[in-house]
Amino acid sequence: MYGGIELGGTKIICAVGTGPAEVQAETRFPTTTPGEALTRMLAFFQPYRLAAIGIGSFGPISLHRDAPDYGSITTTPKPGWAHTDILGPIGRTLNVPVGFDTDVNAAALGEWRWGAGQGLNTFIYLTIGTGVGGGGISNGRLMHGLLHPEMGHIRLPRDQEIDPFVGLCPYHGDCLEGLASGPAMRARWGVSAESLPADHPAWQLEARYLALACVSFMCILSPQRIILGGGVMHQRHLFPLIQREVQTLLNGYIQAPTVLQDIDSYVVPPALGNQVGILGAFALAEQAALEQQALQQ
Amino acid sequence: MYGGIELGGTKIICAVGTGPAEVQAETRFPTTTPGEALTRMLAFFQPYRLAAIGIGSFGPISLHRDAPDYGSITTTPKPGWAHTDILGPIGRTLNVPVGFDTDVNAAALGEWRWGAGQGLNTFIYLTIGTGVGGGGISNGRLMHGLLHPEMGHIRLPRDQEIDPFVGLCPYHGDCLEGLASGPAMRARWGVSAESLPADHPAWQLEARYLALACVSFMCILSPQRIILGGGVMHQRHLFPLIQREVQTLLNGYIQAPTVLQDIDSYVVPPALGNQVGILGAFALAEQAALEQQALQQ
Repeated sequence: MYGGIELGGTKIICAVGTGPAEVQAETRFPTTTPGEALTRMLAFFQPYRLAAIGIGSFGPISLHRDAPDYGSITTTPKPGWAHTDILGPIGRTLNVPVGFDTDVNAAALGEWRWGAGQGLNTFIYLTIGTGVGGGGISNGRLMHGLLHPEMGHIRLPRDQEIDPFVGLCPYHGDCLEGLASGPAMRARWGVSAESLPADHPAWQLEARYLALACVSFMCILSPQRIILGGGVMHQRHLFPLIQREVQTLLNGYIQAPTVLQDIDSYVVPPALGNQVGILGAFALAEQAALEQQALQQ
Repeated sequence: MYGGIELGGTKIICAVGTGPAEVQAETRFPTTTPGEALTRMLAFFQPYRLAAIGIGSFGPISLHRDAPDYGSITTTPKPGWAHTDILGPIGRTLNVPVGFDTDVNAAALGEWRWGAGQGLNTFIYLTIGTGVGGGGISNGRLMHGLLHPEMGHIRLPRDQEIDPFVGLCPYHGDCLEGLASGPAMRARWGVSAESLPADHPAWQLEARYLALACVSFMCILSPQRIILGGGVMHQRHLFPLIQREVQTLLNGYIQAPTVLQDIDSYVVPPALGNQVGILGAFALAEQAALEQQALQQ
């Protein structure tokens, strides 16, 4: 049995289970202070005998295992949470191996284990909701490097005549997140994304920005698939718009049958739906348990 | 002793050697027809007893080892070269293991083995010359996926008032290659890049586009370093312009000391200089030889 924590900036979900077929207990509560959150997380898991715990966390976080702050949230603007050690207190108190990664890398790992990323070596998971974030698997391992990906902050072309909205990223204005997140849609159109009808021009514009992002992913990483999740992607009519726009933008340059003829199996929704976050945390837990087993042998 | 082939769209370089300290013999000739080129390559290597050969090729190429066309150039517009098997005739005739990859992945591997990528898990090598191409190492292995990276074709924001030039990529107009290659600079300014003085505004604009590309690389892959090579980057005054522009564009968002305080060791020239292509081919050969040894054990 694994424990999973989906540590978001606004809410926290904890669960125990083994995979999609078995999510035994679950609790959710708002992300208040680190002290209160840790107390509630530990109280939830204490009754269970767990093999490991996985944590998919909002970021930025420290992922270098030899860094003194490994397992911490680092420079977040969220009050009280900057430089908060998460992995340490949970691992010590519950005395189990802990897997720790970004929320989006956790989701990617969940899709790799049980969902739309199964059997792939290289793919990207992008979530479009309150913010825009991305993670993935490259050469069979979660994407880490200097830090971790921050895919929401790539810059995109914006035609000022078609879209005079200057974007709302506090750092970059009209980066991907600044142009295409749920709050950006609300700010641009004056109503929430969910309330816009499917034939509203908002969706074609949204599809254009997300397709431009997909094209950057494809040209830079050459992923075998792109999974698009998050609240905005609940609008399933976005998928065909994005798929067509990716083909238009590439203009035949990437000669792969899956892009040219089968793009609806290339740009896809998460197979795990709303469970992707917590199942990703289970997958991180499983990885941590396997790593500890390997070390003990 | 290894053989190396730098198979470019305009010229081919063949060499034998072991690494930077020893490049024994070298020949270069124009890329005419595949038949003529293969004959000259084979004639050059025939006298040597080689452990393996590495080929860094112009693309697109087939890199999936289980594909029937593995080791071929695929859909190139270069007359006579589409769907040309390269690896097959060389491996069969010379009867040695052959490593085969894109010219830019080969260069990245060379820098990893002997140059500016040593010891890194994840980095990017971008070349800016007649075209713009990129490769790299991700999680300790060359970047492969659906096909291979095509980094020159990401889309970038272009301010039409500052730069009315529409780009010259035949597929995408103003993608990175369309805006920032050597021929794009010549088309925009009417003279070759080399003849523009260091204080010409062309360089600030060029630095802006290359910095935008670096920002996309950083947000998507989180590389530990970005190596910029190719003819345009012989203009070393570009490096500080790009480094400053990367910092301006990121605006403090990526809180890593190497980006904030030490960016001249983050965005760097190739350590192997003009030898990067042929040394990369040696590194591919070495990898192929090691793989065969592992298979035989």
